[in-house]
Amino acid sequence: MKVAILGGTGDLGKGLALRLAESFDVIIGSRDAEKAKSIAEQYKAEYREKMAATPNITGMQNNDAVKAGDYIIISIPYEVLQQFLDGLTVEATRTIIVPVVPMKKAKEGFSYVPYVVDGHQLSAAELVSLRTGSQNVVSAFHTVPAMKLADLSQSLDYDVMVAADNKQLYESAAGVVRSIRGLKPIYAGKLYVSRYLEPLTPLLLNIAINNKLHAPSIKIV
Amino acid sequence: MKVAILGGTGDLGKGLALRLAESFDVIIGSRDAEKAKSIAEQYKAEYREKMAATPNITGMQNNDAVKAGDYIIISIPYEVLQQFLDGLTVEATRTIIVPVVPMKKAKEGFSYVPYVVDGHQLSAAELVSLRTGSQNVVSAFHTVPAMKLADLSQSLDYDVMVAADNKQLYESAAGVVRSIRGLKPIYAGKLYVSRYLEPLTPLLLNIAINNKLHAPSIKIV
Repeated sequence: MKVAILGGTGDLGKGLALRLAESFDVIIGSRDAEKAKSIAEQYKAEYREKMAATPNITGMQNNDAVKAGDYIIISIPYEVLQQFLDGLTVEATRTIIVPVVPMKKAKEGFSYVPYVVDGHQLSAAELVSLRTGSQNVVSAFHTVPAMKLADLSQSLDYDVMVAADNKQLYESAAGVVRSIRGLKPIYAGKLYVSRYLEPLTPLLLNIAINNKLHAPSIKIV
Repeated sequence: MKVAILGGTGDLGKGLALRLAESFDVIIGSRDAEKAKSIAEQYKAEYREKMAATPNITGMQNNDAVKAGDYIIISIPYEVLQQFLDGLTVEATRTIIVPVVPMKKAKEGFSYVPYVVDGHQLSAAELVSLRTGSQNVVSAFHTVPAMKLADLSQSLDYDVMVAADNKQLYESAAGVVRSIRGLKPIYAGKLYVSRYLEPLTPLLLNIAINNKLHAPSIKIV
């Protein structure tokens, strides 16, 4: 199975690429095909060095990556999400996983800035569903520290809350989560619950700043 | 020291009253003084039976409770919060702790419904600060399961994230949190961070429903 990571050149994208390469063929998507290929080679080299095995990681322009992936992870900054979605066509059968969080860094900390449409607040994941017309959008990975994910020498032990409109779709994404050793998926509810998941990222960043913690996460107890 | 729990007749109010009675004089506030007194007697009897000691728990009308308490915990349903605040005068020196969460139960789960003013979204705690004019409002206790808190035979082991506009105010409220065995306060950031804390309650309720979990909470790891 193939996972396409759009925006796979960012922090979280890198971590997901390296960790998912153990079980999947990984496609790094970027606006620029050459950049995607070069990053894919870097990840491949890093994986080979740490894991003493050669993963299948390739690079493609975003639109080609979307066509090639069975799973599509949209891991791009919120600021460019809308513009990005405008040019995107996704086949209806694909599972789209969205870890994007609308947030802003201010002097005093991080704040959550959801997208407002017609008087409603939308999570980034709901925005992806609205703009792509896809019924297969899943929200996940908001509380996994990107830096630890991207460091293969670190072992993980985190809960990953997943929002999806039905259980079958949840199970599809949960399989991707579970394929990373140390990550345990938890069904948080329908996609709108992403509105309560996404603020966890700025919450954890504020907690990190205010308590001088490195890469805090949360567990359901 | 005295803690006044306004709306101390609800689920969370009961738990806070019973647990805080070990270290504080507890005042149960209610709209109706007679109801407050009768509930205070019930809590006293329950505490005496479980702990083999007689706590100081009294009941008063809400406005009298506010005057008498060194700490004031506003533990009333969000639906009546605004109306409640309209009639409330709080001395500037009091620390006000707000565990209120704007949420709604729908057929498919719980949803978060913050208060919208002038195009901004306000957390319940910010609303309390706005309406009372108090600079000493603290947000806390959103992720502590009320039912476990109210059952003195249960031991607790939870993180309590606290939002407050300054560290001194945080420490004042953290002392109240810490006085309950098994609760560990964590400074989450300024009061606006309550916007990311309050959605944790509907998130946990949705997780409880979708995973058949009893009284889930979260820990910072």
